[in-house]
This record gives sequence, C-alpha cells and structure tokens, in this order.
Amino acid sequence: MKKIMNKSKDVVTQLLSGVAFAHEEILERVPKTGILLRRHRVSNQVAVISGGGTGHEPAHSGYIGDNFLAASINGPIFTPPTLEEILMAIELADQGAGVFLVIKNFEADVSHFLAAEASAIAKGHLVKHVIVNDDCSIEKVNFKKRRRGVAGTVFVHKIVAGAAAKGHGLAELAQLAEDVVSSLNTLGVALAPGTLPGTDKCQFQLAESEISFGIGIHGEAGYREEPLESSEKLANELVNKLKSQYTLKGGSQLAILVNGLGSTPYMELAIFTNDVRRLLELEGIQVRFKKTGNFMTSLNMAGVSLTFLELKDEQWLNYLMLPTDAYGW
Amino acid sequence: MKKIMNKSKDVVTQLLSGVAFAHEEILERVPKTGILLRRHRVSNQVAVISGGGTGHEPAHSGYIGDNFLAASINGPIFTPPTLEEILMAIELADQGAGVFLVIKNFEADVSHFLAAEASAIAKGHLVKHVIVNDDCSIEKVNFKKRRRGVAGTVFVHKIVAGAAAKGHGLAELAQLAEDVVSSLNTLGVALAPGTLPGTDKCQFQLAESEISFGIGIHGEAGYREEPLESSEKLANELVNKLKSQYTLKGGSQLAILVNGLGSTPYMELAIFTNDVRRLLELEGIQVRFKKTGNFMTSLNMAGVSLTFLELKDEQWLNYLMLPTDAYGW
Repeated sequence: MKKIMNKSKDVVTQLLSGVAFAHEEILERVPKTGILLRRHRVSNQVAVISGGGTGHEPAHSGYIGDNFLAASINGPIFTPPTLEEILMAIELADQGAGVFLVIKNFEADVSHFLAAEASAIAKGHLVKHVIVNDDCSIEKVNFKKRRRGVAGTVFVHKIVAGAAAKGHGLAELAQLAEDVVSSLNTLGVALAPGTLPGTDKCQFQLAESEISFGIGIHGEAGYREEPLESSEKLANELVNKLKSQYTLKGGSQLAILVNGLGSTPYMELAIFTNDVRRLLELEGIQVRFKKTGNFMTSLNMAGVSLTFLELKDEQWLNYLMLPTDAYGW
Repeated sequence: MKKIMNKSKDVVTQLLSGVAFAHEEILERVPKTGILLRRHRVSNQVAVISGGGTGHEPAHSGYIGDNFLAASINGPIFTPPTLEEILMAIELADQGAGVFLVIKNFEADVSHFLAAEASAIAKGHLVKHVIVNDDCSIEKVNFKKRRRGVAGTVFVHKIVAGAAAKGHGLAELAQLAEDVVSSLNTLGVALAPGTLPGTDKCQFQLAESEISFGIGIHGEAGYREEPLESSEKLANELVNKLKSQYTLKGGSQLAILVNGLGSTPYMELAIFTNDVRRLLELEGIQVRFKKTGNFMTSLNMAGVSLTFLELKDEQWLNYLMLPTDAYGW
C-alpha cells in the first residue's frame, strides 16, 4: 500500500515534526519525546491533557489550543505513550492548579496513564482523570459491549477543557467528565480497512462490496459485515443503535459528531450528515451542536463514525461552543 | 467503488444540504440552487465570491466566513455552475460596493463566470474578476504548461477577501489579485485516481506501485508516472519544480499550502510537510505562512499538491493571517 512516508521507523517522529512545524504558532514539540505542548501556558487553571497512540490524526494534537488541551502525548502507531512520557507531560503542563487526564478505554492506555497519575501525585501534583468509553458496538464473539474510547473523546476534551478555562477545579472537572461520558455513545463503520505503514497487509479482510459495523479506531474489524446499500440505510442503522442507548424523545437535545476514519472525502461525510439530520428531524430530536470532518481517524481506514452526546446541561453546549485556535476542531 | 451516498442524481443537492446543516451558523443555501451564502452580510465592502464544480470539498463553501468569501456557487460534480446561478449569486452578494469573482482557469468556468459578470454589469452591478492559473504542470502530449486553476486558489480567496474586509475597492482588489496570481504556483501528484459517484471506473489508470505527477483536480492524469520511493524524494521533485518558476534565494519568503487530494490521511500530509520544511530550510528560504490539510480535493483521489506563493508584499501575509470562522481553513 503506497503511503507518503519515508522509513517506517521514522513515521512517528517525522509526523510530530511536521505537526510542530505546521502549527508552530500554537504548539511545540518537547525534543526527543512524543509530547506536544501548547505554547501559551495559562496559570491558575487546570491543564487538561490527553494522548494515546498515533495514527488517529488530527487526534490528539489537533485539540491543543485556547479553551482546549494544554498538551498531547503521542505514542507509536496505535500504541500508548510510556508512563515516563505521560509523567513528563503532567509535570510540564501543570501550572499550579493541577492536571486532568482524558484517557481512552483501552487496557494499555488506562494502565500507563493511571501509573503516571500515581507517580505524579507522589511527586506532589494534583491529578485526576476520566476514562472515556463511548463505543457502544458489540464484540463479534460474545455479543458483549466493547465500550472502547473512540471519537466521542473529542467532545470530552472540549467540554472539560472549556470548564477548566472557566476556572473550575479538579474535583468539579472529574464529576463533569463522568456525567458527559455517561451520556456519550459512538458507533463506527468501515468501508475499507486501514494498512499499517510499511506493510501491504490490510488490518482486516472485507469483501469489496461489504462494510463492517462496529469497527475500532486501531483497525479492529466490526461485529457484522453487510453490503453498503445507501447513506440513508447506514444512517438509519447507526442512529437507531445509538438511540437505543438513551431514552430520547421529541425535544431531547443532542450534540452530534460525524467523524471520518481517515480516507473518506468530506463529500461523503456531508451526505451522511444530511441523512442523520433528516432522521433526527423526523423524531423531533433537536441537534444543538454538530461537527462533521476527520476528528479521530484510524490511519487510512475508509468509513465513518457517528457520536451522540445527550446535552443534559446547557453549560455543556456553552463549552462546546467556546472559540479555539486548535487546528483539528 | 463503495461511497457513502444515495442516488447519483442526488449527490450534489444532498452534499449542499449537509454542508448547510453542518455549518448553519455561518452560511445558508439559497433554496433549489447551488448557491451557499454567508449569513452575515457586510455592507460598504466588496463581496468576494468563488465557485466551480463540486467534488473539491471543502472548496468552495469551506471558505465562506469572516474575512473570507461572501458566497460560493456550486455546480454539478466537476462542472461549473450556470451563468444564471452565478448571476443570482452576484446579485445576492452585492451589498453596494460591488462583487469580485475568483475564477479557476478552466474553459467552461471562465466562460460561465465572465458571461455572468457581463450580465451583472449590464444590470448595474460593479464587478471585477481574476482568473487563477497556479498549476505549473505540463501536458503529456505537447509539454506545454497547463496553468489550470488548482489548490493555490484558496490563497487568492484569503488574500483578496482580507483586503476587501479592510476596505479596498474593486480596482485595488483586481490589481492585488493579479499580483498574487503571478506569484503563485502549484504542482500535484496522485497515488491513486478518484472515482466518480455511481461508477466503479477509476478516472485514469495507474499501476499499484506508481504515482502520477502533474494531476489535475478533476481527476486528470499527470504528465509522468513513476514509482513512489519516499516522501523525501517526492518533496524534492515538487519543491524543485516549483522553485524553477521563481528566482528564489536565501531570505526569500514563501507561503506554502500542502493540500490533500481527498483520501490521504493527515499523517502523510504532515510527514510530507516536514520534508518540504527541511528542503526549504537547507536553502535558507523562509516559510512565513503554511497550511496543511484538505483544501481543494478531487473526490477520493489519493495524493497531495504543493503550492508556493512568494510573499512579495507584507500585506499579503497580514491578509492570510486574518482570523476567520470559515470551516475549511
């Protein structure tokens, strides 16, 4: 699979150098690390930081900026950063009011981030966290919910960081983050699998005419394959699966995120967004906030995920709408 | 080729409905037309408008906003809008100070836009235009320059609209636009051809291991195919070809645009950007402004284009840097 890259071993460091150059007004790379740090430091405010493996661009560096993240920690492709780098990021980001970690629910991510949190606390930092588990797909083998952390994570970033920018403390942010996560669901579908740099092998097999429901953001296959009939049918399936996670009624208020998985053009995302709009309008569900674009990708996977956040508090909407210079928003 | 869409005949109207919904705070669709109009009208200021076929998303609607376009006119896929729709957009956008048209250099685009300009002038509007011809690739058959209007067009939008927002009149904008265009060059390369909605046919043939230099933004093949060796080699070829259009030296100042053609992930664009940075640094050429992302796509074509604008006037940089709420910037 052709990719615009050099040696496989250099992909992550060259990616980070490219991001640091392209957005040098906003962020800087801590030399020889996977840490990207916001240039403008704000004191007397909790620093919200996030991270994980690379391969999800513009996540997570695209959310560094005003009213948003103070830093991102970027590991190898689809592999979380080390305890040491997370700890270093906490120490660099802490401006005296503590650090809040947004962690995606994958075993290795949770383990590294929580170990770094413990180390930082032992060193005298105030640190709290939330574990985002918005994926409501099921496992093919046992039909259990997967509840991984996927694209909805960017809504958590924005809301929690917005509250931090408005002066809320760590304990309040932790409660807010839990409330948001419990109201957040995402479901993704692949039209084509991704390929890792340096390989020709697709991350899973998918017939030319089929799509895979319930995929992950590390190239994981979904729970069911079936033909792609139309954007409308796809929107119908995702909207219904997401709705089943709530007790929505006419007048319920949502924020929605239509997320491209890496190689799906904006045209298709916009057509899909239009179909989601029509379905929700039919039911009288109000979309108070929406984003359409590439927010949390999976290398060059083709496809889309849909996120619902039920807006249970008007403040969440205010935080989502705060202006930012973050390049991924 | 699987695409997230419904019936082929509905692609454009559903795309425009999706865009109008996703960005309803910024723009609105004029019902039953391909016109997207900025909600906020600014009087005593020239309205800068642009357009062309669809299939280039986020162009051109992604450039509607503060300090940017007042409207975009969107035709069928890769087909310019009609004289009538362009004329209607001019009439709707004119707030009394006239309208400036940014036209990409394709025969049908130029013919429709100039006919609409003539009609609008006959109706009493003040209208001027620029024809953008930044493509510096060559035709395979006769080695003539193609000089189509491609991704660099978004720099023309931003600079001319910035000057309009600062109160410059039509005649000044026309001169400014000519100066910018004469300093603007773009070259694109495809890793994989695009496919039109409703067909399985690639727009041109390309061996699995090869890339095509000098492609257009309507799926046109380039002037030469060769294997993709590395991002570095690709950057080297594009930088050298672009440099040959100028007499750059150490201290020369550029704005650069690294543009994804539709299905190329941000990771690859960032790695390529990093290679361009290294090459320009070696020569002491200063990059004063840069953008990396999908700005002027060609459906689901994979690949990248590189644009150089030699900054001959400090004001151009100021206009590029003016803040905007346009969703494609």
